[in-house]
Amino acid sequence: MRKIFIIVNIVFLNVLVLSAQTKKPESDIDQKVDVLIAKMTLEEKVGQMTEVTSDVVSTTTNGVHEIDPEKIKEAILKYHVGSILNVSAHAYDRKHWYEVISTIQAEAAKDRLKIPVIYGIDAIHGVTYTTGSTLFPQEIAMAATFNKEIVYKAGEITAYETRASYIPWNYSPVLDLGKSPLWPRIYETFGEDPYLIKTMGAAIITGYQGNDVSDKYHVAACMKHYLGYGDPLSGKDRTPAWIPDRYMREYFLPPFAEAVKAGARTLMINSGEINGVPIHASKYMLTDVLRGELHFDGIAVTDWRDIEYLHDRHHIAATQKDAVMIAVNAGVDMSMVPYEYSFYNYLVELVHEGKVPMSRINEAVHRILKVKYQLGLFDRSVGNPDDYPKFGSEEFRQVSLNAATEAITLLKNNNNILPLKKDMKVLVTGPTANTMRSLDGGWSYTWQGDQSDVYAAGKNTILEAIQQKIGKDNVSYEPGATFDSLQNIDEAVKAAKKSDVIVLCLGETSYTENVGNIDDLNLSAAQTQLASELAKTGKPIVLVLAEGRPRIVTDAESKSAATLMTYFLGNEGGDALANILFGDANPSGRLPITYPRYANSLVNYYRKNLENGNPDDKHGYNPLYEFGTGLSYTTFGYSNLHISKPNLKDNETLTITVDVKNTGQLEGKESVLLYISQLYASIAPDTKRLRGYDKIDLKPGETKTVSFKITPKDIAFVNDISKTVTESGEFKIQLGDQTQSFNYISNTIPSRTGKL
Amino acid sequence: MRKIFIIVNIVFLNVLVLSAQTKKPESDIDQKVDVLIAKMTLEEKVGQMTEVTSDVVSTTTNGVHEIDPEKIKEAILKYHVGSILNVSAHAYDRKHWYEVISTIQAEAAKDRLKIPVIYGIDAIHGVTYTTGSTLFPQEIAMAATFNKEIVYKAGEITAYETRASYIPWNYSPVLDLGKSPLWPRIYETFGEDPYLIKTMGAAIITGYQGNDVSDKYHVAACMKHYLGYGDPLSGKDRTPAWIPDRYMREYFLPPFAEAVKAGARTLMINSGEINGVPIHASKYMLTDVLRGELHFDGIAVTDWRDIEYLHDRHHIAATQKDAVMIAVNAGVDMSMVPYEYSFYNYLVELVHEGKVPMSRINEAVHRILKVKYQLGLFDRSVGNPDDYPKFGSEEFRQVSLNAATEAITLLKNNNNILPLKKDMKVLVTGPTANTMRSLDGGWSYTWQGDQSDVYAAGKNTILEAIQQKIGKDNVSYEPGATFDSLQNIDEAVKAAKKSDVIVLCLGETSYTENVGNIDDLNLSAAQTQLASELAKTGKPIVLVLAEGRPRIVTDAESKSAATLMTYFLGNEGGDALANILFGDANPSGRLPITYPRYANSLVNYYRKNLENGNPDDKHGYNPLYEFGTGLSYTTFGYSNLHISKPNLKDNETLTITVDVKNTGQLEGKESVLLYISQLYASIAPDTKRLRGYDKIDLKPGETKTVSFKITPKDIAFVNDISKTVTESGEFKIQLGDQTQSFNYISNTIPSRTGKL
Repeated sequence: MRKIFIIVNIVFLNVLVLSAQTKKPESDIDQKVDVLIAKMTLEEKVGQMTEVTSDVVSTTTNGVHEIDPEKIKEAILKYHVGSILNVSAHAYDRKHWYEVISTIQAEAAKDRLKIPVIYGIDAIHGVTYTTGSTLFPQEIAMAATFNKEIVYKAGEITAYETRASYIPWNYSPVLDLGKSPLWPRIYETFGEDPYLIKTMGAAIITGYQGNDVSDKYHVAACMKHYLGYGDPLSGKDRTPAWIPDRYMREYFLPPFAEAVKAGARTLMINSGEINGVPIHASKYMLTDVLRGELHFDGIAVTDWRDIEYLHDRHHIAATQKDAVMIAVNAGVDMSMVPYEYSFYNYLVELVHEGKVPMSRINEAVHRILKVKYQLGLFDRSVGNPDDYPKFGSEEFRQVSLNAATEAITLLKNNNNILPLKKDMKVLVTGPTANTMRSLDGGWSYTWQGDQSDVYAAGKNTILEAIQQKIGKDNVSYEPGATFDSLQNIDEAVKAAKKSDVIVLCLGETSYTENVGNIDDLNLSAAQTQLASELAKTGKPIVLVLAEGRPRIVTDAESKSAATLMTYFLGNEGGDALANILFGDANPSGRLPITYPRYANSLVNYYRKNLENGNPDDKHGYNPLYEFGTGLSYTTFGYSNLHISKPNLKDNETLTITVDVKNTGQLEGKESVLLYISQLYASIAPDTKRLRGYDKIDLKPGETKTVSFKITPKDIAFVNDISKTVTESGEFKIQLGDQTQSFNYISNTIPSRTGKL
Repeated sequence: MRKIFIIVNIVFLNVLVLSAQTKKPESDIDQKVDVLIAKMTLEEKVGQMTEVTSDVVSTTTNGVHEIDPEKIKEAILKYHVGSILNVSAHAYDRKHWYEVISTIQAEAAKDRLKIPVIYGIDAIHGVTYTTGSTLFPQEIAMAATFNKEIVYKAGEITAYETRASYIPWNYSPVLDLGKSPLWPRIYETFGEDPYLIKTMGAAIITGYQGNDVSDKYHVAACMKHYLGYGDPLSGKDRTPAWIPDRYMREYFLPPFAEAVKAGARTLMINSGEINGVPIHASKYMLTDVLRGELHFDGIAVTDWRDIEYLHDRHHIAATQKDAVMIAVNAGVDMSMVPYEYSFYNYLVELVHEGKVPMSRINEAVHRILKVKYQLGLFDRSVGNPDDYPKFGSEEFRQVSLNAATEAITLLKNNNNILPLKKDMKVLVTGPTANTMRSLDGGWSYTWQGDQSDVYAAGKNTILEAIQQKIGKDNVSYEPGATFDSLQNIDEAVKAAKKSDVIVLCLGETSYTENVGNIDDLNLSAAQTQLASELAKTGKPIVLVLAEGRPRIVTDAESKSAATLMTYFLGNEGGDALANILFGDANPSGRLPITYPRYANSLVNYYRKNLENGNPDDKHGYNPLYEFGTGLSYTTFGYSNLHISKPNLKDNETLTITVDVKNTGQLEGKESVLLYISQLYASIAPDTKRLRGYDKIDLKPGETKTVSFKITPKDIAFVNDISKTVTESGEFKIQLGDQTQSFNYISNTIPSRTGKL
């Protein structure tokens, strides 16, 4: 039995972060920027702060964008536009992208100061709008891998393929706290836990930006959406949140703070409003916290139309011109206007009128130009088509397949029904069984991902992958239901009776943003009924949940023998699932979110003790599956939980080790999750919090010792006066089924103002 | 056509409030209290701060409490207990109450200083634990009347009957904002609107306390639960809330501020926690805001065990002794311990140790003794049995009947199917049709109201009232379903086919607190199916919703010809409903809450504009019935909306008048609701807010002019730095279908810190 000492993952990231910080000396760039700014007119400066869509500079023929010579001329030569963002109902090939970007940059080179345009795109799980690109699992599934290296690699490949599309700026990652399971962008997040999000976020940013963001393989990341987007009160997209300052800092801010440390170059602002304050109008959030506390020096760009919306939707600006004044003075650097030039005109006027100071303009332009220099756009505004031989390669596809494999989360496996035997007769059924939309989700080839069955026709749906795996003769297919209504259910039942096992694929189609809003988290009655009718056949059901958020499936799930959560797995998801179903891969994903049991019982795992209810409560905390749930085809045993000292003091480090043994018969990966609970504190402590994780690979019988290092800062919380503190007291460690306590001893007296 | 000028309701309340303030000069009482405190030992002082349950001083035979001589001696002579609260699984007659209270006060008279005990009870809709008392509609239904005079009278009668039970302290009213429709105490609130709650709350407090709370007909009110209880994040009772300070002040605090102005003598503290801070531990809430800002000088008492829970449930105190220290230092005056004397022992120790200052003890005891003096307990600790001839009288019953009648809210009346003719054949069906539990709700004879069918056997259920109204021969009854499962549904369908109309009574049984927690707001499948099966008969359905909160009934309701919301109407509710169904009364209730359409689409009416969604949103704001909805059997026309000036300035008053005409054929009452919207403000303004209401009675053809007076303070909001301000801008008035705009002009510059 080998015993290996694993270096804690934190170190892996620290190395990346450090190396990310050793890029070109910034003083050179700052000097160049200052020289350039000194030459610029007010109009040229305001142009840099203006971002319009590709629509504004294009004509569209059969839905395909071609840059329009007159429109691009107006944008660049009249308005000195600094940035263009992608909108399209199509994905384009690399050749088309080369033409688009070359034409734009050629025009930019005609302007007086020849400042290159920065083109931005939502390459949120691979470069989504380029045909033939590598599409990865969505962020929620990446989080389920609990594997930072995979996430880092996916970021690196996405950056490569985005630059291969001649685009230097990626509006990714989403660092929002995926708190409300109703929210239609849950799948775009790294889940509900602040620690998981911040570590995954730092990993992908490092992948996007590399050691030198100016090289031809890396892009500027855009951490988004700052801040509080993931917890709308009503669950609907871009609707108000109620977030006290304390919790803003406890749960929502840490991923952004970590991203700034990881060197993220840009940031996109949340379109919602917190406590009645739109973030686009919040000097506190955009300047005091973001710059003053987090020391972010990159670009803060608005989301879609959000300065206009300060008037139209938030009603905090009486006129559009006031909206521009409020947003820019609050700290917005660039406006995603995006359809016309009112922002430009108003801002020029406001500076002339003294309502926006020139210092604010210079600050914003400095940040924008600095990123353009950092990206190397002044030297090379368009990449070389021949530099990207690995675009869409088999090597990259394997990384996506591995990610999907490690994401799939086995929630139940009664009597080890899985893996299935390859000679079984299998009925594949359900609305998500034979569509790439339920694998890719939104932001795939199009905004809503509604064309994935066309663009990814060469990729395997779940059905196709199973057919390839065990042969078409062993597979029957009857959908039984669409997403919302029954469809030939009798045929499905008939086919079930002839089969050995039913692979029932329920869930959701692709969507994003407000199009994905729902009014009831319960899965549709049709899908529930399909499960119910199939269950009556007595044939075992393997339930596959292909969905972007945890729809309530309690009734259907009660009828399954095995349950797998597949989230939105990307283009290789069908193959990954078939490998797991039939034993060619061993599942190792864990839920990065709580899977609720009931539609109106939505509590995250890092709840307060009060949520547990009285002992006699029938309606206390009782999710269908807890955060972190995930089974394997092998088993793991935890032992020898050891702490380096019983008492932790300031400036000390506690080393926690635990032995993990593969006690089963198959090689498998195990995500080791470190939870720590403070028993009592001046603010009601969370029942437990994830404070570390590591993923290890173990052969049967093998044991590895996993180690975590904890400092007092790692177990801090935000107190009544919004300070991050660690208070003396007892802490409980949980690692698998092992628990252990230690004490932290500090001289700090808890604050007890009782402020809200 | 008579034209009458109605004095705005605000004046009515102001008069009451003023008269409530003209009670005995307090300096006399303060002096007496100071003299007494000077004589007290620490132990005697701490005893005054200790409240135990009636269980602690009783033996129980067959569930009936009798004061135990040894236990009461220990409580009074050893621990100097200042207060006892009622808990019981029984209601008692007045004679029993006389014995209980007399025995307690006799013991108190044996203690050194002869300080009377203050006995407290939950007489939340009438004196609930005394047999033969007058039970009124629950608060939610009282709010639906939009009639402050009725609420005032109900308070007056409840005080009378509570004193007739020899009890001087009523743990009522609930002033919580009924924000989460899941919360099991929604029915105990005056609804979701701050203005409605504050005006109703002031009215009932004035009814409870009268002009002189020491007289034999009035009791001390207890405003509760301070603060933020009505918006648990998970919808469950006593679970955490997230409430930013700004909204605490905007929505939750005003009813308490108004109650303090109305002279409320005591206050009970919310058991939940806000932003991780239990209110019982919040010096900010209990001292800075409550005393410093609201200038409350009465008793702040904990709720059930809540100091212990600071350790056990909130985990903000490492020991029970710390919990006592934190709570008392934060500003708790009296602890509802309630089972033993640990609070007493710890607090004595803490004072000796200097951890709780004697000044804090003296302050608390001063407040407690002052209320005892104000209640006249030193002069008359037990009332005279003969002083209450009106207890349970017909006169009082009529007031309850009137309240229930004005509460019933007609939501739909297709083709004027209502009122029904008395010679119709009627099927009465559904689980709420024949039980007093669905009329009385919780806090009726017992905590959960589970014995109402025994104690109120002499009162009419809905079925019984209809039988009395039109004769048993015209009425058939088949329940068709229990609350959760079908029951002889075929019989119900058969009976429906033989009837002219179906009165389908759906909803909830009685409950309160955590026992009423639910996990899904959707009405049970059984009740929905009952509606569905009955609808297939083609017979018209009159849907009666007897329930404590707005369960989702969208499917069932889509099949009704008429829909009535009856909330929990109290003992006269069956008769009130029968009167309305058959035209002997005209409905005039309006919803004091939003009735949602879907289980995960829960937005209050005073939403932000952002909740309305984009114009293309299929899932924007779309409740089943809006706040304020309520039809009549007659019709009303609004005209001549007039404002006294187009521009309002500081220290000015705007007079708004509108003519309301009864344009139908029947006499009817109309609640006139004044909504005002600020179009733009520095904090996203609510789409609209209720700023006044008045209820008028109009004969057919009659017109009355209703008038409201608005000052800048009445249209203020809480800004980014927690200040209540009125900002310049345009305001829109809405009265019925009439709208009008005015401008407020101020010199104040909006604050724009953007703080959360």
